[in-house]
Amino acid sequence: MDYGKVIKEIYAEISDVKKEGKVADYIPELSVVDPDKFGITLITSEGRIHSAGDSDERFSIQSISKVFTLSMAFSLLGDKIWDRTGVEPSGSPFNSIVQLEYEKGKPRNPFINAGALVVCDILFSKRADPKNEILGFVRKLAGCGSINYNMKVAESERSAGYRNAALINMMRSYGNIKNPVEKVLDLYYTVCSIELTCTELAKAFLHYTNIRKDFDICGYTLTRSQIRRINALMLCCGLYDESGEFAFEVGLPGKSGVGGGIAAVNPDHYSVAVWSPLINEKGNSVAGMKFLERLTTITDDSIF
Amino acid sequence: MDYGKVIKEIYAEISDVKKEGKVADYIPELSVVDPDKFGITLITSEGRIHSAGDSDERFSIQSISKVFTLSMAFSLLGDKIWDRTGVEPSGSPFNSIVQLEYEKGKPRNPFINAGALVVCDILFSKRADPKNEILGFVRKLAGCGSINYNMKVAESERSAGYRNAALINMMRSYGNIKNPVEKVLDLYYTVCSIELTCTELAKAFLHYTNIRKDFDICGYTLTRSQIRRINALMLCCGLYDESGEFAFEVGLPGKSGVGGGIAAVNPDHYSVAVWSPLINEKGNSVAGMKFLERLTTITDDSIF
Amino acid sequence: MDYGKVIKEIYAEISDVKKEGKVADYIPELSVVDPDKFGITLITSEGRIHSAGDSDERFSIQSISKVFTLSMAFSLLGDKIWDRTGVEPSGSPFNSIVQLEYEKGKPRNPFINAGALVVCDILFSKRADPKNEILGFVRKLAGCGSINYNMKVAESERSAGYRNAALINMMRSYGNIKNPVEKVLDLYYTVCSIELTCTELAKAFLHYTNIRKDFDICGYTLTRSQIRRINALMLCCGLYDESGEFAFEVGLPGKSGVGGGIAAVNPDHYSVAVWSPLINEKGNSVAGMKFLERLTTITDDSIF
Amino acid sequence: MDYGKVIKEIYAEISDVKKEGKVADYIPELSVVDPDKFGITLITSEGRIHSAGDSDERFSIQSISKVFTLSMAFSLLGDKIWDRTGVEPSGSPFNSIVQLEYEKGKPRNPFINAGALVVCDILFSKRADPKNEILGFVRKLAGCGSINYNMKVAESERSAGYRNAALINMMRSYGNIKNPVEKVLDLYYTVCSIELTCTELAKAFLHYTNIRKDFDICGYTLTRSQIRRINALMLCCGLYDESGEFAFEVGLPGKSGVGGGIAAVNPDHYSVAVWSPLINEKGNSVAGMKFLERLTTITDDSIF
Repeated sequence: MDYGKVIKEIYAEISDVKKEGKVADYIPELSVVDPDKFGITLITSEGRIHSAGDSDERFSIQSISKVFTLSMAFSLLGDKIWDRTGVEPSGSPFNSIVQLEYEKGKPRNPFINAGALVVCDILFSKRADPKNEILGFVRKLAGCGSINYNMKVAESERSAGYRNAALINMMRSYGNIKNPVEKVLDLYYTVCSIELTCTELAKAFLHYTNIRKDFDICGYTLTRSQIRRINALMLCCGLYDESGEFAFEVGLPGKSGVGGGIAAVNPDHYSVAVWSPLINEKGNSVAGMKFLERLTTITDDSIF
Repeated sequence: MDYGKVIKEIYAEISDVKKEGKVADYIPELSVVDPDKFGITLITSEGRIHSAGDSDERFSIQSISKVFTLSMAFSLLGDKIWDRTGVEPSGSPFNSIVQLEYEKGKPRNPFINAGALVVCDILFSKRADPKNEILGFVRKLAGCGSINYNMKVAESERSAGYRNAALINMMRSYGNIKNPVEKVLDLYYTVCSIELTCTELAKAFLHYTNIRKDFDICGYTLTRSQIRRINALMLCCGLYDESGEFAFEVGLPGKSGVGGGIAAVNPDHYSVAVWSPLINEKGNSVAGMKFLERLTTITDDSIF
Repeated sequence: MDYGKVIKEIYAEISDVKKEGKVADYIPELSVVDPDKFGITLITSEGRIHSAGDSDERFSIQSISKVFTLSMAFSLLGDKIWDRTGVEPSGSPFNSIVQLEYEKGKPRNPFINAGALVVCDILFSKRADPKNEILGFVRKLAGCGSINYNMKVAESERSAGYRNAALINMMRSYGNIKNPVEKVLDLYYTVCSIELTCTELAKAFLHYTNIRKDFDICGYTLTRSQIRRINALMLCCGLYDESGEFAFEVGLPGKSGVGGGIAAVNPDHYSVAVWSPLINEKGNSVAGMKFLERLTTITDDSIF
Repeated sequence: MDYGKVIKEIYAEISDVKKEGKVADYIPELSVVDPDKFGITLITSEGRIHSAGDSDERFSIQSISKVFTLSMAFSLLGDKIWDRTGVEPSGSPFNSIVQLEYEKGKPRNPFINAGALVVCDILFSKRADPKNEILGFVRKLAGCGSINYNMKVAESERSAGYRNAALINMMRSYGNIKNPVEKVLDLYYTVCSIELTCTELAKAFLHYTNIRKDFDICGYTLTRSQIRRINALMLCCGLYDESGEFAFEVGLPGKSGVGGGIAAVNPDHYSVAVWSPLINEKGNSVAGMKFLERLTTITDDSIF
């Protein structure tokens, strides 16, 4: 398969059509991003890199970071982590608080906001300087030491983050948050603000396609079986309440962020990252989803 | 991979441990099934058949039949079918009526009871004799002309089926059921009562592993892309509200029934059917799930 | 207080303003009622009758009949009836099925549809010919032997009654309906179709203002305390999910029906019935609510 | 009616039976209250005071204070206040967050925690020193200048108040809280900590029985009609999700607090306050409810 050619074709095809969606406007700092940005990087399991568009420009990966923090916490706690968060799709909007009440403070999965807050709480408990630790992990994973947080974005999100404050207080009332809520929220927003390029993101996700060997980043180790399970979680829960649609249309484990990025993996084949800031009402990049649907259709290859 | 040897090993291993779960007791006719039954058949994409235990005894496949009726309706309507049912995981118990109300009579997906009732309603509208049509389709798919409905089971279920009656009336009130509710319920219970052996079930599901060629059974055609999408639906929604757990532990698209059967596929590799009537509180076979988890762990091979 | 004068004043005042609301259109037979009908009768505890408008024309009292069937069932079962239905406001739309699921088939109160279906189930169990028995009770209560059911309305409602069929099947699945669902639905729709004039309705409700003596109609006896409790239920639950609004604006125990009638009582003072077929989206007569709000404001007299 | 004699009889009767319920244990400072405390005061509309037991000992009135803050905010805003909170019973646990999400941040009524937080937000916006203003209002209403907040209780509650923090952040995300959440929570917990005796509480509530004249306390004026509406709200929503039960068993507008107090009014007849710290799982005083049920049964007098 000539992925380079395929990517250029789809890139051209999608660039031509009128843009739908809108830039995330509930986070002031994100709302000023140029809506016309569009970048793609695909890296094959042999390490060949294929890019198009704005693939070397950094953007706010937001919820895509939840894959990285989960990996660290899963490595630290092993299966004990599943006492704190479930592994089932949420079946409701990504920041819904309803389910939390019915399930007594245990989030459905680690990729909805509530679950990622629990993961941050775990890292806060286990690490003296969790921000630095996470940054080091992501830099190593993506192979670039200049990756960093964008504190203006973090601050911008925190100042509007009343729903996350509601979620974390709710979980605290059930005892599923162990540290001061402000500290955990601070860590959460900081991690969400991390910025990578498409190419760095695809490099980081390449580790999740290596299902033939174990994972070891800065001492955080995961077995092949554990990597597979993270992929299963991405498939079932990675795109908020559009996860079923994404599995159905694209057929790859993936994770999206409201910054307009989506990273996905085709185990043993390739990782891919796409970025276009215009998102639909479910919080997922319109062009990003379209690109990935075309990719697996044209290559006639998904995990199914 | 010597699947024959692996299957025999896991069969022996699981047969030795104490049985958990209980036989479905809400359906009188099913509650008398011998709880010690345990059968397995795996068929590779080259057609090699590996069996163990009670693999040639017929049992009530119940909800596994939802894969067959969906395939027919998807073939008949194409993507129009998604106006009538969604493709998202339900995130709540398999017969919950709550979600239906919030989503105005449109079921979350075709594998929960509500969605399967809609699928039956579609087949009822499109076919003069839907019972016979479905029977012929399944016989052809499984390659055996003696497969049949068990009308005593169908009758037994109908007489206790107040929740399904509630679901279908609810959807009828929103206009998402077009035919008389009694007729559609009758079709639904009849189809659920169909009986196959593990080997017949694995043969039927082998068609869903053939992702390199189109599907054509009795004139019901599906493209490779459509088969992949049915697999994606099975992965996200096939085991009621334990679908996430199954994806996480097993990592294969599959569909379970309260009769204790589970059928699953590893696209391009094999189909597998397992039967043990003892089910957990979520309606899934305990030994069946355990068997499949061991299978993908030992062979170190899932779709992820 | 010269109630005759007050009623005429408010009648004139309301007749002058433009009509809002619309005739119940989900019941074909009700949708053809003349929207301009408007009648009122108030009867003081001394028995003085004050009327205005179409007060002697019969109309479909619909859910107002729930007060009468509850009175019979409460008399028959005493406090045992509260094992079958609660006494709490529903806090959600009048035909919501959600709450039923969370509360395992026990309706919140006897005035929502689910609760009234349970009451009909009780009368069906306890009486050989419940339709005749209920008719006799209402005739006696209202003091008129020509009161009757309108079978065309009953049939019209049944044919569109999918939500009630969903509700009753749901409760049957939890064991809170003991008789065949079709029989209970038939009784329910028949009772809802009963027709009274405003004057007959006010006469019937006069019995609920007599809080100084016990109630005895056709052998159905209720203590003063029991009558008070029925009034409390009307206050908290009598106007679907607008009960709080009605208590707040009007301040009298009352019960409405989608036929556009509202009956209310001011204990020890008067009963009042008003009828205008134009209902709001919550199912309550717009002019009827307005009339009663003006009545308690002008007379400066409510139960509070 | 010799209320003095009746009160002594019921007091003796209830003191004799074994205590049920338990002291509110989620607020550390409240959990140390002597569970055997039991006090009652009834004041007739003519001003005669009848007491029994620990009627002159101050206790934490908690949610009963919501009546006072509502009165102030209703006086300040008039009917505009109903844009910020509804008047319908909640039909679900007193601190439920679910309803808030479905109703986009508008609480069902001003007596659930969410509604009372909105009321505090209003007073915070309208008054330079709301704590002092409220204290002055309550002192005047109860006729005693030594009434005060208990800051240890307020602090104790705040430190455990994660659910209220969740509620207020949720409402803030919908724009229905205008001031900093910490400030409003601080005001809320301070007001809840106010301490009155049964006699002071009955004196304060006597103003709500005076339905023949307007209300004017420290310049906060309410018409008779507005007082009636506050009483209607108490009847429908005053005892959390046991309000229907209280209306049914007792039949008086009332308001309870988790400190074990209940205040109620029989308009034009009397106000009554009872205190026993042992509460049931719905947050209401067991002996308090029992006392009031016996009171209206023995005197054969409720608002119904």
